[in-house]
Amino acid sequence: MESGRLGGSGPAEPGPRLRGLRGTDQAVWASSLSEAEAGAGCFALAVAAVLPAGGSGERMGVPTPKQFCPILERPLISYTLQALERVCWIKDIVVAVTGENMEAMKGIIQRYQHKRISLVEAGVTRHRSIFNGLKALAEDQPNSRLSKPEVVIIHDAVRPFVEEDVLLKVVTAAQEYGCSDHDLEFGTECLHLALKYCHIKAKLVEGSPDLWKVTYKRDLYAAESIIKERISQQICVVMDTKDEHVGCRLEETLKNELNHMKKVTSGRDLQQIILEQCYSFVCVNVMTSDFEETHKLLNMLEESNISILYPVVVISVHFLDYKSVPFGQKMENLMHIREFAKEMKKRNILLYGLLIYYPQDEQKLKESLKQGATIIAALIKERNSGLIGQLLVA
Amino acid sequence: MESGRLGGSGPAEPGPRLRGLRGTDQAVWASSLSEAEAGAGCFALAVAAVLPAGGSGERMGVPTPKQFCPILERPLISYTLQALERVCWIKDIVVAVTGENMEAMKGIIQRYQHKRISLVEAGVTRHRSIFNGLKALAEDQPNSRLSKPEVVIIHDAVRPFVEEDVLLKVVTAAQEYGCSDHDLEFGTECLHLALKYCHIKAKLVEGSPDLWKVTYKRDLYAAESIIKERISQQICVVMDTKDEHVGCRLEETLKNELNHMKKVTSGRDLQQIILEQCYSFVCVNVMTSDFEETHKLLNMLEESNISILYPVVVISVHFLDYKSVPFGQKMENLMHIREFAKEMKKRNILLYGLLIYYPQDEQKLKESLKQGATIIAALIKERNSGLIGQLLVA
Repeated sequence: MESGRLGGSGPAEPGPRLRGLRGTDQAVWASSLSEAEAGAGCFALAVAAVLPAGGSGERMGVPTPKQFCPILERPLISYTLQALERVCWIKDIVVAVTGENMEAMKGIIQRYQHKRISLVEAGVTRHRSIFNGLKALAEDQPNSRLSKPEVVIIHDAVRPFVEEDVLLKVVTAAQEYGCSDHDLEFGTECLHLALKYCHIKAKLVEGSPDLWKVTYKRDLYAAESIIKERISQQICVVMDTKDEHVGCRLEETLKNELNHMKKVTSGRDLQQIILEQCYSFVCVNVMTSDFEETHKLLNMLEESNISILYPVVVISVHFLDYKSVPFGQKMENLMHIREFAKEMKKRNILLYGLLIYYPQDEQKLKESLKQGATIIAALIKERNSGLIGQLLVA
Repeated sequence: MESGRLGGSGPAEPGPRLRGLRGTDQAVWASSLSEAEAGAGCFALAVAAVLPAGGSGERMGVPTPKQFCPILERPLISYTLQALERVCWIKDIVVAVTGENMEAMKGIIQRYQHKRISLVEAGVTRHRSIFNGLKALAEDQPNSRLSKPEVVIIHDAVRPFVEEDVLLKVVTAAQEYGCSDHDLEFGTECLHLALKYCHIKAKLVEGSPDLWKVTYKRDLYAAESIIKERISQQICVVMDTKDEHVGCRLEETLKNELNHMKKVTSGRDLQQIILEQCYSFVCVNVMTSDFEETHKLLNMLEESNISILYPVVVISVHFLDYKSVPFGQKMENLMHIREFAKEMKKRNILLYGLLIYYPQDEQKLKESLKQGATIIAALIKERNSGLIGQLLVA
């Protein structure tokens, strides 16, 4: 595989990385058979990943095993699979789950459209699960779609924030290092397992700070906040060209007010912005229409399927001119947003309404717009489905 | 001190504890001079605490030292001080801060009304800061309000979730154990410091799972979620006795819908409920009044000062009868909530409005109430100040 194709693969999660110093370790298996080929260049290698996911989640203090705990309504393991899937040079991903969770896991793969995944039954220990995964990859079964890999990455199902650069480091290490007594002495138990049962070489590689493991309930909270923060980095402002004035004023205010925390983009090339995975939209409707612009946007979002992985926020903005339309009447027209919002929720699109008072007085207008920006920031940050269909007023 | 008084002290944070297995350690110094007295019973002991808080927060990746990072707008160290203050048998709390943060720290103590706190200058290392704190306690200076303690607890400023039972274990260990070579060999560096510089005995005590340290940005997120969850456990429903019917229906719905996550209380003895530190209120106003009941509640909350430590949520509920008052007109009357909300925000009280549609049809009424409960749960959970003064509709 050429390096250009590799570079084109995005990060596992959108947005910038959080900082920190303490990394975690990642184990890697390099089949001793493939050493000669491995030396020829990493991406000529056949790489696979094994995810032991048979844990019971005792430490979490909740009945659901932690790898199946929901974050923004999606199970943790799906985030980890997504992170691995995005790395195009990982050919196969083998997940080891217990028999009782096998059907649920199949459902997750289908619902979130995961690719290149095979399932094996987990063992009674983490080690046995890894062994079962390796065995499935090693066997040249006639009906198996799995091809025998040269490097296997073992990755915890509960480390959702793994990045391509760390995985690359792992694979590179698999080529550079053999298996020495030293490595085994100071490495993890897994490295022992590799030598003992599979007669393959292993090396402990230092991970990145983002590679932390979701272990306690507080880690689930942290993961949820990190994911929310990442998908809220970019806000796209969509408006009709017929009535751009008020829309531009709002876009300008958003840029000034949220500059330190968000990137505000114009929705001129909407298809491209959706493709680049923007999950937050502010849609400005012209004063005389009700939801025309919002409906167009919602249709595009539905077609794109972007909301399969993350909840998409759409804030339908309506400017309120006291003089032309009575407040109460305008409100009643706009109350229909509640039904749209219920429909959209089924597609994981969170729709909110925002009425911005549009006075003639410049100072008052500025205040309205600023208040609007505050409300937009709050809705995008929290992504609370309990408030969908509400008409907020700035 | 008698044990009854000890038992009466509440936990450091309201609500139940989160579970987890891995604890952290807590170091304790027992002055060797006081061993005989210590044996006589823990609460005859004079106990003090030293908090080294001179860190720079490098690992957090943010410019503010982590102990001063805000959680719900209050600095982290204030939560830790609150946790220690609640333990009535800790007589003095000495905080070591750098010269440049001294004034900010004084401001924190004043604003959040912390008691029994003394400040000393931090050293260039954590060890030197501890030493400075111990020295301030050890010196019998004529002008000092500090009295020489028999046991000193050293507690990290960035472990806000410390509970009284762990502190008690620490003090008990200070009596039971002396200082052995074994302890020093397997203990932390701090234990070495204790022996080397202060000639006092030290023992490593196993901590509770809640005693985790806020180190990375993700830990701040986790801490915020935990605190929000704890202060949202109890919801108090306040209503006027003149028009209890709709209020009782709402209270009943809240109990059914939120039963698994919240405790819903009637606000009949409001003073007592405020004293017991409830931070979430649903206030039902009778149909003919606008904000009468809400104003009464807000006055009581202001007098109680309960919002100094945590943001208090008040949801002003108004039932909406389409037949008697036109929708638009009712809305316009209620829009005044925006100004009240701005005023209340200055007191750390987050006021939101909730209009519940009240149809004659029983099935529709049930749906309205259920939707109201969903909105109430969302507002209480998030405590988002960006949405104050909004009128939500169920």
